[in-house]
Amino acid sequence: MTSKPTIILDPHARRMDEIFSPADRKRLYQMAHVIGGSDEPMPQAEFEAALPDAEAVICWDWRYGNDLLRKAPKLRAIFSVEGGFPIGLDYAYCYANTIRVLSVAPSFARQVAEMCVGMALACSREIVLGDLKMRRGDEEYLHAGNTSTFMLYGQPVGIIGYGGIAHALHPLLRPFDVEVSAYDPWLGDGYLRRLGVKPKSLEALLAESRVIFVLAAPTVENRAFLGHPELAHIQQGAVMVLMSRAHVVDFDALTEYVVAGRFKLATDVFPTEPLAADHPLRSAEGAVLSAHRAGSVKEGLWEIGEMVVDDLEMVLRGFPPRRCLNAEPELSQRYATIVVDRGDDE
Amino acid sequence: MTSKPTIILDPHARRMDEIFSPADRKRLYQMAHVIGGSDEPMPQAEFEAALPDAEAVICWDWRYGNDLLRKAPKLRAIFSVEGGFPIGLDYAYCYANTIRVLSVAPSFARQVAEMCVGMALACSREIVLGDLKMRRGDEEYLHAGNTSTFMLYGQPVGIIGYGGIAHALHPLLRPFDVEVSAYDPWLGDGYLRRLGVKPKSLEALLAESRVIFVLAAPTVENRAFLGHPELAHIQQGAVMVLMSRAHVVDFDALTEYVVAGRFKLATDVFPTEPLAADHPLRSAEGAVLSAHRAGSVKEGLWEIGEMVVDDLEMVLRGFPPRRCLNAEPELSQRYATIVVDRGDDE
Amino acid sequence: MTSKPTIILDPHARRMDEIFSPADRKRLYQMAHVIGGSDEPMPQAEFEAALPDAEAVICWDWRYGNDLLRKAPKLRAIFSVEGGFPIGLDYAYCYANTIRVLSVAPSFARQVAEMCVGMALACSREIVLGDLKMRRGDEEYLHAGNTSTFMLYGQPVGIIGYGGIAHALHPLLRPFDVEVSAYDPWLGDGYLRRLGVKPKSLEALLAESRVIFVLAAPTVENRAFLGHPELAHIQQGAVMVLMSRAHVVDFDALTEYVVAGRFKLATDVFPTEPLAADHPLRSAEGAVLSAHRAGSVKEGLWEIGEMVVDDLEMVLRGFPPRRCLNAEPELSQRYATIVVDRGDDE
Amino acid sequence: MTSKPTIILDPHARRMDEIFSPADRKRLYQMAHVIGGSDEPMPQAEFEAALPDAEAVICWDWRYGNDLLRKAPKLRAIFSVEGGFPIGLDYAYCYANTIRVLSVAPSFARQVAEMCVGMALACSREIVLGDLKMRRGDEEYLHAGNTSTFMLYGQPVGIIGYGGIAHALHPLLRPFDVEVSAYDPWLGDGYLRRLGVKPKSLEALLAESRVIFVLAAPTVENRAFLGHPELAHIQQGAVMVLMSRAHVVDFDALTEYVVAGRFKLATDVFPTEPLAADHPLRSAEGAVLSAHRAGSVKEGLWEIGEMVVDDLEMVLRGFPPRRCLNAEPELSQRYATIVVDRGDDE
Repeated sequence: MTSKPTIILDPHARRMDEIFSPADRKRLYQMAHVIGGSDEPMPQAEFEAALPDAEAVICWDWRYGNDLLRKAPKLRAIFSVEGGFPIGLDYAYCYANTIRVLSVAPSFARQVAEMCVGMALACSREIVLGDLKMRRGDEEYLHAGNTSTFMLYGQPVGIIGYGGIAHALHPLLRPFDVEVSAYDPWLGDGYLRRLGVKPKSLEALLAESRVIFVLAAPTVENRAFLGHPELAHIQQGAVMVLMSRAHVVDFDALTEYVVAGRFKLATDVFPTEPLAADHPLRSAEGAVLSAHRAGSVKEGLWEIGEMVVDDLEMVLRGFPPRRCLNAEPELSQRYATIVVDRGDDE
Repeated sequence: MTSKPTIILDPHARRMDEIFSPADRKRLYQMAHVIGGSDEPMPQAEFEAALPDAEAVICWDWRYGNDLLRKAPKLRAIFSVEGGFPIGLDYAYCYANTIRVLSVAPSFARQVAEMCVGMALACSREIVLGDLKMRRGDEEYLHAGNTSTFMLYGQPVGIIGYGGIAHALHPLLRPFDVEVSAYDPWLGDGYLRRLGVKPKSLEALLAESRVIFVLAAPTVENRAFLGHPELAHIQQGAVMVLMSRAHVVDFDALTEYVVAGRFKLATDVFPTEPLAADHPLRSAEGAVLSAHRAGSVKEGLWEIGEMVVDDLEMVLRGFPPRRCLNAEPELSQRYATIVVDRGDDE
Repeated sequence: MTSKPTIILDPHARRMDEIFSPADRKRLYQMAHVIGGSDEPMPQAEFEAALPDAEAVICWDWRYGNDLLRKAPKLRAIFSVEGGFPIGLDYAYCYANTIRVLSVAPSFARQVAEMCVGMALACSREIVLGDLKMRRGDEEYLHAGNTSTFMLYGQPVGIIGYGGIAHALHPLLRPFDVEVSAYDPWLGDGYLRRLGVKPKSLEALLAESRVIFVLAAPTVENRAFLGHPELAHIQQGAVMVLMSRAHVVDFDALTEYVVAGRFKLATDVFPTEPLAADHPLRSAEGAVLSAHRAGSVKEGLWEIGEMVVDDLEMVLRGFPPRRCLNAEPELSQRYATIVVDRGDDE
Repeated sequence: MTSKPTIILDPHARRMDEIFSPADRKRLYQMAHVIGGSDEPMPQAEFEAALPDAEAVICWDWRYGNDLLRKAPKLRAIFSVEGGFPIGLDYAYCYANTIRVLSVAPSFARQVAEMCVGMALACSREIVLGDLKMRRGDEEYLHAGNTSTFMLYGQPVGIIGYGGIAHALHPLLRPFDVEVSAYDPWLGDGYLRRLGVKPKSLEALLAESRVIFVLAAPTVENRAFLGHPELAHIQQGAVMVLMSRAHVVDFDALTEYVVAGRFKLATDVFPTEPLAADHPLRSAEGAVLSAHRAGSVKEGLWEIGEMVVDDLEMVLRGFPPRRCLNAEPELSQRYATIVVDRGDDE
């Protein structure tokens, strides 16, 4: 018998040693009586049996059924290690019963933000194209190799979707003395201004920025909101860095612009993954292509476990979690509409 | 007749509109009576004729002969727009006669520093290799595409040669919470520590850093000081970013290590430029190759003119220059030994 | 008739033009149909009549009774302009019905943080004592006037209570190259470490810090938790800056130490306000005294209105507020125990 | 017999253990054969005897006579530990013979810069006046005590004289989101702009700044350049922080304005030190007075020794010094005119 609080641990699509460092795993087991903790998905019966005593559930999604929420009287927190918020969860019940729903999304912010910087420079300074030319043997040296490059320093930079990644990205951009503007209809202008960010309309941002970071989460409302007419506002020779989801862009229009040399593109995401073998971007000189790798660096994954254990400790002590992202009641309906894009959402 | 001070302007290997913005060119001509200012090298006779009245010379190198210094009684400053200090100039005469010798090297610092960041991330996050694989069609998505990447955040970073580029690079690295160490025998430990940099021996720096920036200027003393035994200290999987000159490295040894996969390399410089068509680095997956393009971005060149005009104004007003790099008497002999590397120094 | 949402505005102890700039007041009236908005407290009957239609209430405290919450079916947010959270409000009802309870505490963070820096330097560099001596005519010049001063640069700094003020204070301290540690039982160590703050036990923090900022909010649990034995840990000659409430300190013990010259104190708060005319601190040379003035700068008050209008806009649009502080369910019981200290809490 | 280089050490007006930490003193004696090193001024004969072998002299001023320079064939550097550059030294001879003349002025920059921040906040937030009122017993609490205070955040700040102290001050001001402008006729506009500082005319700076830092070194040219007409430009209620020398201001005019309540003053310097017992500033409520204490903190003095030993090492190794301030040939005549103000220059 144990006096430690009981928790359920069913990381499902993630392996235990992938998300927990040995130290964090040890902290976790010292802090709680852990049911589960296997690399295999937990059988539903085992889950149901453990639920009445569980004070927290660490899971991937909420595939167990909303009815079960009623059978978890001690439940104080649901941690999803997937990265988003569980689709289809009965958030209203959770709010009404003070069950925190928590996402490890912040664990990805720094690695994606640093990839944003790398991708932007790879494009603006033609690091990828320059390397490609050296492999082909048609490189040009010195000024001859810089006819279409530009410095990031001092450029007007626009960020579309000013969430966690943008918050991590901004400090990385600041020493380049860039002027940062943002478009984010989920946020207020006053909030952005206080962060030192200039709020802009989508059109103004696209037209006035030399580097554009697209970081907006995909929802049913924002499918392809960056369409042909919007993309037309982008400056000749500008750089777009697409990091959230292909869903938010009219990808065919985008491809057309990039292949035509209107602007440059660095993208980590594609409408289908793998990208079609004959997709024209695969040979476009104005593109930098990355196979959805911005948020999957190994050491970054251990931040998931660290974050979960840190916040589990707070929750079990009766305090608010501080490191995971909290599901907000106003957004719960919107979370439900976030498109799950695992390489095949279109 | 003019009461404005006379200056000689012979940019030689640089074109006027390449280094002077229209605004800076206007400032220059308002400030001084300018002899020269053509894109063609100034004939020696014209130079000699103008020298007795000249208060400043803006040139590429000092190909005019040291004897002529004695014929320039009003001379207060020699600006070289080449990037280094003139080889073979009689510095002792200049110091004794209070003639400033000035380099526009600082104009390159920011563009090279930002390229350093881009190259480091291109290597550590495999942005170039990832793109290459997408073009070849053998890319791997998500974690499968991240088996040998690492985040820059929090890494131990070593800088070899802590001059102007390092000073510009450090603020760009700071938001990544890296720990910066440096090896620079021309500087003191106390100076580095005051900058927040940990002084290290070369061996310790190589062995303990995950990302190594090689920024040391080439001199006759430091040819290939990064040889086989030194490179052996580098950690498996680390990243070296070589930005100053190939001269400072045993390039064959370096190639061997990179081809063998011991560590990764991003390099902007090569022992011969163009690099031999069949050089093994051209097909090495662990390499990011750039054709000596880090310091040649177009808008960066206008900083040369801005800097020269800013400091010319100070010099003509009787004040010390503030933006160009001053030749230091202790280093003048060393400047003389700096290897001029225009792609063919070996 | 209006289609604009109805809100109730009863700032009570604050005057309208004190908290709303003309521009923010205009925004507010354009955004909503405002009931109230007078400098006089709203009569209960008027409040009750307006409540059935109200989507938000801007008030001082919740003196209207918890029963009325049930008569506000459209209510989405309660903004308190007092600075804390309303004592005695039925938070459970609010959470269960998705009514945001919001505090303007963040509006005070910057002005209090800058006062923290000013008070710390006034103490450590003896700016106040030095001025006092000049007024008395017994000042000592140069080194003779610096026998017991110290530089803030590089000192170990401890923060007790790492909330909003600490978050604003940290960036102001960073350029002094201080090492910041914190003690805050409401937060987790991992959270602090991610902020670049070293978590410490209370004893270690007191013993190891040269400058100690006391910023902990007063609750029934933490009355005088800085008592005689805890204060004994403080280094000879250290500086304590007391900015939250006298409630958290054994003020008699504190006075004793300061009068005895064990350490220096800068305090903005006192157990009774006004402080007793014959209180020994009034003549203590080791003290810097401020009459609860850190959070009352005029232009700071307009941040209250700006913040409320910014968040009201978000709430009425159906999005989460971003600028005010949200009441957290886990802390609601603790809010209820926060001691209201308006100069007479003891 | 020793093979170590010989140096002369005659700190004169500074004591050895005041400027050298035990560690730096040990470094010094390991590095060189030291003649002198006493707290007593070195007899001229001893100095003359040592000079032929001396590679460096560490002294207070150059009271030994310029003729002696000719008897120091090995001399490479003269370090003055006074803070300025030696008056009357034959700089031309030094330049022509590659003898570095070095000042430890940078050792004062940080402590004076932090005092600048403390003095500015003491004034703008009325920390000194607020304390004074508490001692008198007529303090007012909360808003009543803030009728004439203002926040430093976001204010336009002007710096007169943008030398070493300003360089140290700027990073301390940056997190307050202030807009920094400067007036400095010894510097160029382009240089200031590159530092993120807006160059302004003196009049514009005085008229447009809410906080004005006067940091200009005193020369024979700039006596009282801040006279009655200039001071008239200052905004009602602004704050002037006078830290360099009273010499640069018409102190009577300044006193008149401050006593009349036109603007506030924090000053560390006075036309005579001690200040006359009946000087009206001694009782002015708008003044913060400090007895020339900004640059005399004990631990700051050890920076002098650290800096000297660091640079001595560089000089003896044949490299340029990096931490002390180098005398510039263009300014040597101006150094000669810098007014030595040790409390009695007027």
